Amino acid sequence: MSFPNHFELLATDGNARTGHLTTPHGVVRTPAFMPVGTAGAMKGLHWREVRDAGADIVLGNTYHLMLRPGAERVAALGGLQRFTGWNGPMLTDSGGFQVMSLSELRKVRETAVTFRSHIDGTKIELSPERSIEIQRLLGSDIAMQLDECVRLPAERGDIERAMQLSLRWAERSKRAFETAPSGYMLFGIVQGGDVPALRQQSARALIEIGFHGYAIGGLAVGEPQAVMLAMIEETAPVLPEDRPRYLMGVGTPEDMLEAVARGIDMFDCVMPTRNGRHGMAFTRFGQINLRNARHADDPRPLDEASTWPSTSGISRAYLHHLVRSGETLGAMLLSEINIAYYQELMQGMRSAIGNGTFEDFQKQTRAGWARGDIAAR
Amino acid sequence: MSFPNHFELLATDGNARTGHLTTPHGVVRTPAFMPVGTAGAMKGLHWREVRDAGADIVLGNTYHLMLRPGAERVAALGGLQRFTGWNGPMLTDSGGFQVMSLSELRKVRETAVTFRSHIDGTKIELSPERSIEIQRLLGSDIAMQLDECVRLPAERGDIERAMQLSLRWAERSKRAFETAPSGYMLFGIVQGGDVPALRQQSARALIEIGFHGYAIGGLAVGEPQAVMLAMIEETAPVLPEDRPRYLMGVGTPEDMLEAVARGIDMFDCVMPTRNGRHGMAFTRFGQINLRNARHADDPRPLDEASTWPSTSGISRAYLHHLVRSGETLGAMLLSEINIAYYQELMQGMRSAIGNGTFEDFQKQTRAGWARGDIAAR
Repeated sequence: MSFPNHFELLATDGNARTGHLTTPHGVVRTPAFMPVGTAGAMKGLHWREVRDAGADIVLGNTYHLMLRPGAERVAALGGLQRFTGWNGPMLTDSGGFQVMSLSELRKVRETAVTFRSHIDGTKIELSPERSIEIQRLLGSDIAMQLDECVRLPAERGDIERAMQLSLRWAERSKRAFETAPSGYMLFGIVQGGDVPALRQQSARALIEIGFHGYAIGGLAVGEPQAVMLAMIEETAPVLPEDRPRYLMGVGTPEDMLEAVARGIDMFDCVMPTRNGRHGMAFTRFGQINLRNARHADDPRPLDEASTWPSTSGISRAYLHHLVRSGETLGAMLLSEINIAYYQELMQGMRSAIGNGTFEDFQKQTRAGWARGDIAAR
Repeated sequence: MSFPNHFELLATDGNARTGHLTTPHGVVRTPAFMPVGTAGAMKGLHWREVRDAGADIVLGNTYHLMLRPGAERVAALGGLQRFTGWNGPMLTDSGGFQVMSLSELRKVRETAVTFRSHIDGTKIELSPERSIEIQRLLGSDIAMQLDECVRLPAERGDIERAMQLSLRWAERSKRAFETAPSGYMLFGIVQGGDVPALRQQSARALIEIGFHGYAIGGLAVGEPQAVMLAMIEETAPVLPEDRPRYLMGVGTPEDMLEAVARGIDMFDCVMPTRNGRHGMAFTRFGQINLRNARHADDPRPLDEASTWPSTSGISRAYLHHLVRSGETLGAMLLSEINIAYYQELMQGMRSAIGNGTFEDFQKQTRAGWARGDIAAR
C-alpha cells in the first residue's frame, strides 16, 4: 500500500524548500519549527501564545503522555487537540527516544522495548504496533515509527544493528498504521549514525516501504555540527522530493539555517523553552544571558525592532530582575520570546525561499548573529 | 496639614459601600481586590491577564522590592508601573509586615526596625521615613505607614505597646510623605489586636493625624473569623465615611463578603495565586481541589456558566493532568482562574451595592458556596 501525499512543494531556492503540509487539523507552512509540548502542555506558555508566536504545529511526547494521563484516557476525552485545547496540528514522537533517555531497566528485543516508568516504576512494553496504537489514540496528525536511536560516538556494528532493527520496526509500524483514517500521516525515520553508507541504506529501504514523510533521527545527540550537516547532505538527496523531511530534535537557530539550506523542512527542539527557563533569550543578535549583571539597569528591550511585543516592549532590567528573583514570569516571558524568535526565523526563511533570496537571507541572518548584542550601558 | 480626599462614595447599602478611588495611574472601583505582585511580578500571570481579569489595582511588597531590585534602581527605571509594565494603580505595603515574617535577627527600636536580608544577610535599617522614601521611589500610588503588627493571640500589654509605637510611626510617616506630589496617597493603619478599646483608640488617633485612607492591620494573622469580623465592627464605624477603608491581607471569598457588609472597601491577599499553585480553584461553588482523582476523566469545565474563558472552557481532566504532572501551565491557569473569580465577586458586590440588592447578593453567593461542586461522574 502506497501512502498518499499531503505535501505541496511551493518553491525551492538551491536545496532549500518551502511548502505546505496539510494535516487533519490544519496546514503547516514549511520550513516549520515545532515547539515541544512534552506532556500536553508547553512549559510556561498558554496555547494562545504558541499560536500567536506563529507556530502552525506542535510536538507531543508519546512517552510522557502514555504514562500520564494515558493514551486511552486522552482518546476518551476526544484526543490531544481537544484535551489540551491546542486544536491545531500535532506531531507525536514514537516514545522510543525517551524510553532510552528517561526510563529505567529498559531492554530492547526484536519484538519490543520493555522498561520501567520513571514516575511509578510500572513495567511497560512498547512495540512498534503499540506505539502506533498510542499515537492513534492520542489523535496526532503525524505519527512517528518506533526506532532505536544510538548515542554517538558509537561502534559501526552497534549503529548498523540499531538501523536494521529500526527498518524492521518501520515495516511493522506501517502495517499497524494502514487502518488510520485518511489525512493522518506516518513518518519513517532514517538512522545510521555518522556512517554515510548506513544513512543511505536506511533512507532507501524506508522509501521502499513508503511513508508520508521522512525524518532524520539519531542526530543532535552529541556529535559536532559538521557531522550532523554531513549526514544531512548524505541523506536529503536520497529522499523523495515530494515528501516532507523532518530533522528530529534540532536545534539552534544556526543548525536550522544550515539544515534548511540542505533541504530540511521540519524541526523540533526544547531549546527555546528550556533556555528561556534558564534566563537565555534568542534574538536576531544571538543568545543573550539575562542573568548577567550588565542588564540590571538597562531600560532597553532585547530588540527594539522586533515585531513581538515582549521582545520590543519589555526592558532588560525587568527581565534580569525576574530571572534573578526566580519569578515564574521571567521563564514565561523568555520562553515566549524564544518561541517567537524561532518562528520569526522560520517565516524569514519561508519568505526568502519563496522570493528566491535565501542566500541573502542566510548572509544577513549570520551577520546579525555575528554582530552580537548591543553594548552594555 | 490635612490630606485631600480622592475617594468618591457612589452608593451605600446597609454598611456596604461602593465608590471610586482616583489615583495618579487610574481609577479604582471599590470594593476592590488587589492581587499581590510580590516582587514586581504576579506569580504565573502576565500583567495583561491581571488587567483582563478585572483588577484595577495591584499590590507590591516593599520588603521584597527594596532588597531586589532596589528602590533607587526602580526609580531610575521610571518607577514600578513603568518597570513592570503594569502601568496601572499600585499600592505598596510599608515593608514592616514582611520584615517581621521573613527576615532574620530583626530588632524593633523606637527609631526603626533593623534586620538582615533573607537573600544575602545584609544588615538593613527600616525607619518610618525610609519606608516612605522607598515607597515614593517605587512610585506607588498608595503608600502605607510603617507599623508593628503583633501575631495573635498576644498579651494586651504587647498589643498596646505595638499599637502606640505604630501611632508614633504614623505621625513620622505622615511628615515624611508631605512633600509627595498631589494625587499620591498615604494610608494610616489601625492596630490594637483583638482588643476593641485599643482598636478604637488607634483609629481615633490616626484620624486626628489625618490620612488619605485608613487600613485595618494585624488581622488574618491566626485569629478566628469571628474575632476579625468583631474587630471590623468595632473599627469601621469610627472611620471617616468619606475615606477608603482597607482590610490588609484578607482573605477568603467568605471573609471579603462579610467584611464588605461591615463597610470595608479594599482587600489584598496571596490566596488566589498561592492556592492556584497548589491545585485549588475558587469558583461560585466553593473551592475545588483539582489534584483529586475524581477529575481525571471529567470533560466538564469548572463552571460552564462563567464568563472567564479558562473557567468555562478548560476541562477538569486537563487541569487535573497539569496539576498532577507539575506542569507550569496548571499553576498559570488556576492562578488566573482564581484572580478572575475574586474580581467577579468584587464586581458582583459593586453592582449589588449600587442597585441596593446587596443582601440578596450575599444570600445567593452564600447559597452557591453551600451548594458546593457538581457531583463527580
